[in-house]
Amino acid sequence: MSKFTHLTEDGQAQMVDVSQKVPTAREAVARGKIVLGEKVFQAVVDKNIPKGDLFATARIAGILAAKKTADLIPLCHPLPLTKVEVDFSLSPEDKSLSIEARAKTVAQTGVEMEALTAVSVAALTIYDMCKGIDKGMRITDIRLVKKTGGKSGTLILE
Amino acid sequence: MSKFTHLTEDGQAQMVDVSQKVPTAREAVARGKIVLGEKVFQAVVDKNIPKGDLFATARIAGILAAKKTADLIPLCHPLPLTKVEVDFSLSPEDKSLSIEARAKTVAQTGVEMEALTAVSVAALTIYDMCKGIDKGMRITDIRLVKKTGGKSGTLILE
Amino acid sequence: MSKFTHLTEDGQAQMVDVSQKVPTAREAVARGKIVLGEKVFQAVVDKNIPKGDLFATARIAGILAAKKTADLIPLCHPLPLTKVEVDFSLSPEDKSLSIEARAKTVAQTGVEMEALTAVSVAALTIYDMCKGIDKGMRITDIRLVKKTGGKSGTLILE
Amino acid sequence: MSKFTHLTEDGQAQMVDVSQKVPTAREAVARGKIVLGEKVFQAVVDKNIPKGDLFATARIAGILAAKKTADLIPLCHPLPLTKVEVDFSLSPEDKSLSIEARAKTVAQTGVEMEALTAVSVAALTIYDMCKGIDKGMRITDIRLVKKTGGKSGTLILE
Amino acid sequence: MSKFTHLTEDGQAQMVDVSQKVPTAREAVARGKIVLGEKVFQAVVDKNIPKGDLFATARIAGILAAKKTADLIPLCHPLPLTKVEVDFSLSPEDKSLSIEARAKTVAQTGVEMEALTAVSVAALTIYDMCKGIDKGMRITDIRLVKKTGGKSGTLILE
Amino acid sequence: MSKFTHLTEDGQAQMVDVSQKVPTAREAVARGKIVLGEKVFQAVVDKNIPKGDLFATARIAGILAAKKTADLIPLCHPLPLTKVEVDFSLSPEDKSLSIEARAKTVAQTGVEMEALTAVSVAALTIYDMCKGIDKGMRITDIRLVKKTGGKSGTLILE
Repeated sequence: MSKFTHLTEDGQAQMVDVSQKVPTAREAVARGKIVLGEKVFQAVVDKNIPKGDLFATARIAGILAAKKTADLIPLCHPLPLTKVEVDFSLSPEDKSLSIEARAKTVAQTGVEMEALTAVSVAALTIYDMCKGIDKGMRITDIRLVKKTGGKSGTLILE
Repeated sequence: MSKFTHLTEDGQAQMVDVSQKVPTAREAVARGKIVLGEKVFQAVVDKNIPKGDLFATARIAGILAAKKTADLIPLCHPLPLTKVEVDFSLSPEDKSLSIEARAKTVAQTGVEMEALTAVSVAALTIYDMCKGIDKGMRITDIRLVKKTGGKSGTLILE
Repeated sequence: MSKFTHLTEDGQAQMVDVSQKVPTAREAVARGKIVLGEKVFQAVVDKNIPKGDLFATARIAGILAAKKTADLIPLCHPLPLTKVEVDFSLSPEDKSLSIEARAKTVAQTGVEMEALTAVSVAALTIYDMCKGIDKGMRITDIRLVKKTGGKSGTLILE
Repeated sequence: MSKFTHLTEDGQAQMVDVSQKVPTAREAVARGKIVLGEKVFQAVVDKNIPKGDLFATARIAGILAAKKTADLIPLCHPLPLTKVEVDFSLSPEDKSLSIEARAKTVAQTGVEMEALTAVSVAALTIYDMCKGIDKGMRITDIRLVKKTGGKSGTLILE
Repeated sequence: MSKFTHLTEDGQAQMVDVSQKVPTAREAVARGKIVLGEKVFQAVVDKNIPKGDLFATARIAGILAAKKTADLIPLCHPLPLTKVEVDFSLSPEDKSLSIEARAKTVAQTGVEMEALTAVSVAALTIYDMCKGIDKGMRITDIRLVKKTGGKSGTLILE
Repeated sequence: MSKFTHLTEDGQAQMVDVSQKVPTAREAVARGKIVLGEKVFQAVVDKNIPKGDLFATARIAGILAAKKTADLIPLCHPLPLTKVEVDFSLSPEDKSLSIEARAKTVAQTGVEMEALTAVSVAALTIYDMCKGIDKGMRITDIRLVKKTGGKSGTLILE
């Protein structure tokens, strides 16, 4: 094969090569929060949301989004997800809703992005379903809380 | 990791964990039928369909849909399909068209949904291409007829 | 432009030209049924489904599928859906679950396929979530029950 | 058409009907921030990111995600986007990167979700490209800052 | 709204604003060619292709791809396609197959990319279905041959 | 299982069965060229492209398209890509831009289509971003240049 001269020698985006890595069981847990404010929080507690069943809709949206991760995040590798789970928790103190997603796979690379994507899209779905009440909600503190498996092993961030 | 209190303890949707299952060869066959009625049946026999080549279009639609199963069915696991096939059979007695789909994979979970999705979308495509003649068609009897592989082994339903 | 000789003069699939049609308000209602059988019917009534919240999951799957119709059905035109709704009804007599979808748009062509696709994918989702109990379920009687708008006007089929 | 008994009378998710609304020009601006931390911030400043060209990749990911909003957020209406723009701004004080997305359409409903989705997916892409350096980054403060057009008119939140 | 400092003042990718443009009828025709070589050409003529019905499959692939254009090409606006058509023509002289796609819309921007995408994906599908015979095929001369509508009016390139 | 009579005995499209093949490391390299013409070539050299950052956008488009190959090409098997890379090279002699894509997987079937799809969509993206300057560009010479792995082993075409 003839030599192909790279136009740019540095900084070009690429999906890194994981061909030589052995598939191992991996898990990631991510969390985030949506600060609802007084009015939306009350509507959630009262199950009085204009567009309907809030948690079931956001949960399904998060699970489906995890499966779309490689289509959304340009340099992510496609992964055969073996489990996805999305949970919610209300905090009356700061009128917020916390979201946790847990993803698993057996693959050559980790599932952190899948868990983070599930949390993000579940949060956006909550925003969408409640924005008729108040558009001032804020999606915040989306972060990885734990990962296991792979070369770097277990990482517990909180 | 701190404890995360589940908001709902029961009934929440989740993609079940198949991480511990060993990938095995699996196959599923599904069938369905579309009752065309007199006029559409005759047009199909005469190859006189307004939108063109009926079986080829429906077959491709079914095959592509099988590959989208995990994107359509929220709790389905993504599977590396190793084969998909869609076939048709005309029944002059009841003026119907039968559809059969066969899907294979080597994975931790079965391909029943992929075969059923292929049949469903092939049937919808038939409806779409013939609805200019008669909108009274009926898609019916979509069911699994056979599955092999996995813990539950072979199941033959008809 | 030079002449392009068509390879096949007949029967080739094409998305028909609706450029000259004026956008009008349109609505379609479709229905279908899934025959659950004794065991699954009881589990649905008892809200004891292995994969979780059945109706919410199937409803969301149906709504999302309606939005994917032009991606699933090869010759469908993309439509700006203005409403989608999916409902369920249990029938103790024949241990079945009925599904109804209603879709609306303001466009040059009808929304029948969107309503039928929503019913089909909601039914497949029900099958997926209950197949751990019994794989003998049957998706049946998917049909258009009503359409309004467009050149052909209102059509009420049942 | 015969009556269809709703299984659940309250709280079911639905895409609300916007058929009667007149399409108007609409715009939305959303913002968010990713707290990078010392090491990642320095790598960004030094253009020394393992996976390559950071801002171009995240910008494209955000623009493409805006176009996928109706596929990600279950009850969102599909919208013909007429413009999407994603910008970035580094804050040395708190070692963070701010993201702003601006979306426009001429439609029956607003583009808030498209702008928020663009910000979220751009942020996830930044996380993905920098996570080889530090997995402790935090995506935060995703919110609507402005919307114009539609019945509720202009809303300026910051 | 507070000022947002752009990180990069030049060269950043954006979907240009077409909000102020009036929707008009538009059409585009694109063509391309795949040089098959002796063996594949003969197999096509003999309808002896390993993976089956060549033209129907490539035509459907092209039509579906036209509808995915805005998902594939980052800065393309989503368009409500009103017609897509894909045709083929065999050239015994140079053992090639020509592909022509025609797309229409009523929109604020043109359909050139939709026609070009349909040709490209139809050509890739031909390659895929014939590559078991010879991998040396070459997809070539993909170009716009005609466009009508829009501010720049009619352009006839061949 | 009862016998299902095939409607058509020959020529029907199908995704061939690769269930029995053992996954092996595979790589494919494809190339193509876009003949830009004098004006576009100069604008590319001057980094003066109306829609922004040309190479980064086309590179991301190509990488994302490689991941969509099985969704675009009807009979392609879904593959777990382990690497994708897209590069560019300008040729002042013929005012053209060459594109090279390299894809890797560990699977039962090859990645030729993924590499060819990446090249094609990167080329379409270049066309889209430069078409405001000149619509006479031509995408040409898309071909496989190398493949390794699988039963047929290494194939070097140039």
